[in-house]
Amino acid sequence: RTMYYGKGDVWVYRSYAKPLRGLGQIPESAFAGRPNVIFGMNVQMAVEGEAFLPSFTEGDNSMVVATDSMKNFILRQAGAFEGATAEGFLEFVAGKFLEKYAHVSGVRLFGRQIPFDELPVPEQEGFRPGELVFRYSMNEYPTAFVAVRRGPEGPVVVEHAGGVAGLKLIKIKGSSFYGYIHDEYTTLPEAQDRPLFIYLYIKWKYEHPEDFRAEHPERYVAAEQVRDIAHTVFHELTSPSIQNLIYHIGRRVLTRFPQLLEVSFEANNRTWETVLEEVEDLAGKRAEAKVYTEPRPPYGFQGFTVTRKDLEE
Amino acid sequence: RTMYYGKGDVWVYRSYAKPLRGLGQIPESAFAGRPNVIFGMNVQMAVEGEAFLPSFTEGDNSMVVATDSMKNFILRQAGAFEGATAEGFLEFVAGKFLEKYAHVSGVRLFGRQIPFDELPVPEQEGFRPGELVFRYSMNEYPTAFVAVRRGPEGPVVVEHAGGVAGLKLIKIKGSSFYGYIHDEYTTLPEAQDRPLFIYLYIKWKYEHPEDFRAEHPERYVAAEQVRDIAHTVFHELTSPSIQNLIYHIGRRVLTRFPQLLEVSFEANNRTWETVLEEVEDLAGKRAEAKVYTEPRPPYGFQGFTVTRKDLEE
Amino acid sequence: RTMYYGKGDVWVYRSYAKPLRGLGQIPESAFAGRPNVIFGMNVQMAVEGEAFLPSFTEGDNSMVVATDSMKNFILRQAGAFEGATAEGFLEFVAGKFLEKYAHVSGVRLFGRQIPFDELPVPEQEGFRPGELVFRYSMNEYPTAFVAVRRGPEGPVVVEHAGGVAGLKLIKIKGSSFYGYIHDEYTTLPEAQDRPLFIYLYIKWKYEHPEDFRAEHPERYVAAEQVRDIAHTVFHELTSPSIQNLIYHIGRRVLTRFPQLLEVSFEANNRTWETVLEEVEDLAGKRAEAKVYTEPRPPYGFQGFTVTRKDLEE
Amino acid sequence: RTMYYGKGDVWVYRSYAKPLRGLGQIPESAFAGRPNVIFGMNVQMAVEGEAFLPSFTEGDNSMVVATDSMKNFILRQAGAFEGATAEGFLEFVAGKFLEKYAHVSGVRLFGRQIPFDELPVPEQEGFRPGELVFRYSMNEYPTAFVAVRRGPEGPVVVEHAGGVAGLKLIKIKGSSFYGYIHDEYTTLPEAQDRPLFIYLYIKWKYEHPEDFRAEHPERYVAAEQVRDIAHTVFHELTSPSIQNLIYHIGRRVLTRFPQLLEVSFEANNRTWETVLEEVEDLAGKRAEAKVYTEPRPPYGFQGFTVTRKDLEE
Repeated sequence: RTMYYGKGDVWVYRSYAKPLRGLGQIPESAFAGRPNVIFGMNVQMAVEGEAFLPSFTEGDNSMVVATDSMKNFILRQAGAFEGATAEGFLEFVAGKFLEKYAHVSGVRLFGRQIPFDELPVPEQEGFRPGELVFRYSMNEYPTAFVAVRRGPEGPVVVEHAGGVAGLKLIKIKGSSFYGYIHDEYTTLPEAQDRPLFIYLYIKWKYEHPEDFRAEHPERYVAAEQVRDIAHTVFHELTSPSIQNLIYHIGRRVLTRFPQLLEVSFEANNRTWETVLEEVEDLAGKRAEAKVYTEPRPPYGFQGFTVTRKDLEE
Repeated sequence: RTMYYGKGDVWVYRSYAKPLRGLGQIPESAFAGRPNVIFGMNVQMAVEGEAFLPSFTEGDNSMVVATDSMKNFILRQAGAFEGATAEGFLEFVAGKFLEKYAHVSGVRLFGRQIPFDELPVPEQEGFRPGELVFRYSMNEYPTAFVAVRRGPEGPVVVEHAGGVAGLKLIKIKGSSFYGYIHDEYTTLPEAQDRPLFIYLYIKWKYEHPEDFRAEHPERYVAAEQVRDIAHTVFHELTSPSIQNLIYHIGRRVLTRFPQLLEVSFEANNRTWETVLEEVEDLAGKRAEAKVYTEPRPPYGFQGFTVTRKDLEE
Repeated sequence: RTMYYGKGDVWVYRSYAKPLRGLGQIPESAFAGRPNVIFGMNVQMAVEGEAFLPSFTEGDNSMVVATDSMKNFILRQAGAFEGATAEGFLEFVAGKFLEKYAHVSGVRLFGRQIPFDELPVPEQEGFRPGELVFRYSMNEYPTAFVAVRRGPEGPVVVEHAGGVAGLKLIKIKGSSFYGYIHDEYTTLPEAQDRPLFIYLYIKWKYEHPEDFRAEHPERYVAAEQVRDIAHTVFHELTSPSIQNLIYHIGRRVLTRFPQLLEVSFEANNRTWETVLEEVEDLAGKRAEAKVYTEPRPPYGFQGFTVTRKDLEE
Repeated sequence: RTMYYGKGDVWVYRSYAKPLRGLGQIPESAFAGRPNVIFGMNVQMAVEGEAFLPSFTEGDNSMVVATDSMKNFILRQAGAFEGATAEGFLEFVAGKFLEKYAHVSGVRLFGRQIPFDELPVPEQEGFRPGELVFRYSMNEYPTAFVAVRRGPEGPVVVEHAGGVAGLKLIKIKGSSFYGYIHDEYTTLPEAQDRPLFIYLYIKWKYEHPEDFRAEHPERYVAAEQVRDIAHTVFHELTSPSIQNLIYHIGRRVLTRFPQLLEVSFEANNRTWETVLEEVEDLAGKRAEAKVYTEPRPPYGFQGFTVTRKDLEE
């Protein structure tokens, strides 16, 4: 049966964590690493184990690690952590927790990382990235998920995912959507060229989970790199649908990162409604100008997983 | 592999749907039914089928039902629907969809119902529930989930759940939390009597899914009845933990509703922090007065399923 | 020039505050008072004074009351407060603050009260309102605003307002909207009978601010009473527009409560879009059934103040 | 009395608007302009005029421009607009509206601009800003406010403001807060060196409102430039308080932009709580590492206006 408990919204900010450097380079991205001057995330932790059953059925708290103590545990491990990645941090916390509490059989941790953008500060000529002031960014962010179970020879990562969430990308032209089923329920006009606005959440799984620790940083896959692949493929492709677009992004990700087993997508269609197909022609680019507005709330979505097998075709 | 697509945030409001009447009565609830003058919900619909693979891999849209058409489909079925429950509506939409589109193998629908509260209007003596003006309520609301697959003899409900979400209940005294593990990570003080503030999301599964249609309304389980059981058990029980509280709510639900197989909980602990343990003694109840404030963000949570087997013990 | 500072999101929950009883009765409302077993609100406090200028211009903190101390101040006064209303509490805090800090010239406080709904618990016959478990309600809530300045003879209330915010009311028929200007910008069809869905925020001002303390409770105006007037007038009136509807609600409020000087409205139009004007005729009420959905985001709004002078006409 | 009505959440996206180029350069910012391939904003529009009184008091809609028509009006003017700034667009809409509807005496428009970030796409060597795919950014954004009234010789801008909202800046060290009043309400420890996390909303007023049209772009003040001044001053200054920090940002803004009359601030303090003052010393920077978490909800805030007179001191 379902039985777990834990702590959510554990916001942990660790200053001067190990920088993430030495990533493998790919053509789609100039991303070179994270300084980790502020390594911050929102963590959710759930624990499992038959030992917790009496806390439910009998109100016997003797085996209960208070969720307040879990919060303290996570925060203190943030001080002890010597790695550079969110996935690595979650695995570290899970391992320490299983080590400390022998009656816990499994721990699941999910983290949403906060991007702290470096900001340019003036120097004698031009600007350099400042090392003191950062933007707490609300844009796309890395995610990490790790599930660890107690095994005969110590903790084992039984599930995991790296990810990038919150991507909001608009392509102003070069997308179509036509050829779909037309029947009595169809009111959507076909579009040869529409502005396509998508939300993306992309997750990936390594063949060897230990790669997510970035002990060999050239084997780590950074959220920023996948983000850059996503918008580059979007830029390159004249896409006939979101379905096809995410398939191609997925193939590109697996091509660039052979250390990955698969990549999964949750996509949203937030495409605007066209109000004015053309505005009075004035000059130059103006000829292409249009006016759009937000559509009604219903939004389309897609879920899909691209695997290595897809690359063989 | 994961492969689905669909439409979310389809807000559908149907006026003068069939009232929900004739429910079984239980000691914990005076709830007598819903007039369904406004039957409204937010629906999410996802479809599955191998036929959709080429839309991803080839950009071939010929088998694609546009998600805009799905929205139209749901809205029009709301006009044709003759039942009184959200679960029934979702099953109805799923069945019609599978009937219409032979290449679709399965449909999953989730709905959050909007409670439209009747409001009292004056009559010659006293007040009666008005039949024209309603409050769009932001408090707890019914949820419904139905997954239907094409079977050899027509559509089959393969998964389902009724539910009530968004319960926010505070018990001002009569809750304790002590006896948990104390070690170097523990900073939470034990509490013999704390105000306990919980969020609850409760879901249930019928033995016979067709009961959720309320064709035999005495076999339907209304979200409002489960809500009333929840706060009544909370009121009665001196609870040593949320774990134990939800276990007892679950047992009570299964006791009252033998037509259910199991009931599941997602609970949240939002208990306030005590600022003043006592205020100057003035008179009467004042002796018990205290001052509290919101705690820091991390919140504890619990997940648990109570099954019929738990009733045997 | 603009110069203030303060503290926001000070959540204060006081248990066993003085109940609010003895209100004047009006035909539109059966509201009888608040038990105030939990008296809770979210408070924002801003202070003013020329003495604070050097903290801005010189970084001289010697006159600064830390906002953390303000939070403590508010929370502790919640223990000392002997009244029953939010407006009274804010005035009490302001007075104490000016008394304590001689260099502060004015204090502005705004509060959003949390409605804690009593919940029915079974007794031998029927149900009674429970005194232990409450619903933390997300629906309409009372608001209070008080600005106090140091006067020659002590603190003076220079501005104030009681209010009710978050009203979300839908009238399923009996509202029209036609006769407005038609020109090349008009696409809205006239409506002889539309479902009208409005958000309302209503505020009122007393002739004598001390009435808001409810020392003479029959002179206090409770948010729940104004709420009940609002939906009753909405029920009674065949309204040609929101503009006219709020005018009539305002007149009714001033008629019922001669102790008020004026009542102000911020209204929102959230009316649904009609999808099916009729559904197949089956029987009875079904003939009137329709299907609606959420409109696009832009929403209309109205602001208006009704004064005692409006009653003379 | 208060009397207005209008339309909110009018999302308008205009493609290929006039690029914003030719801005004046300042030492703190490398910002060079906006391509305006997508010029998008959320607009709120309110109209005023005695002619609207009968719509409230009599339900006479004959003078009412439906808010739906206002939405159409705004969207269509977006097609006709030939400028490059949000302030200019709002003034343009207001002027056209007053011209069209002679019974309207004033129009107030507020806009929140959506930043569409250019994204790098690979070219033969390195990367260039792509002109097709943009990020819909959730970070800081420009705001604009314009109030226009009918004057004897045509529309007059009676109030206006440019702004940048949603700035979220954290400085990891180099901020202190001490020397404030210590009394029985004080629990905050003094801080010689704290991480300071602030939200900022900065608004400015021109001496000559027509400068906001950017017809002479070197006289326009871009939100991005003010943003860059804010984080640069934050970086340079060892700040004793937010009060003093915003004063210095304000002075710098007025120094760089003599075309401005004043600059106003709404600041929020979101500073984290320190959990671990030091972590085990390992090597290098690690010696400075600390662990923080989110504080309780109450947050401090500041409001202040810096005027040209402040520069004379």
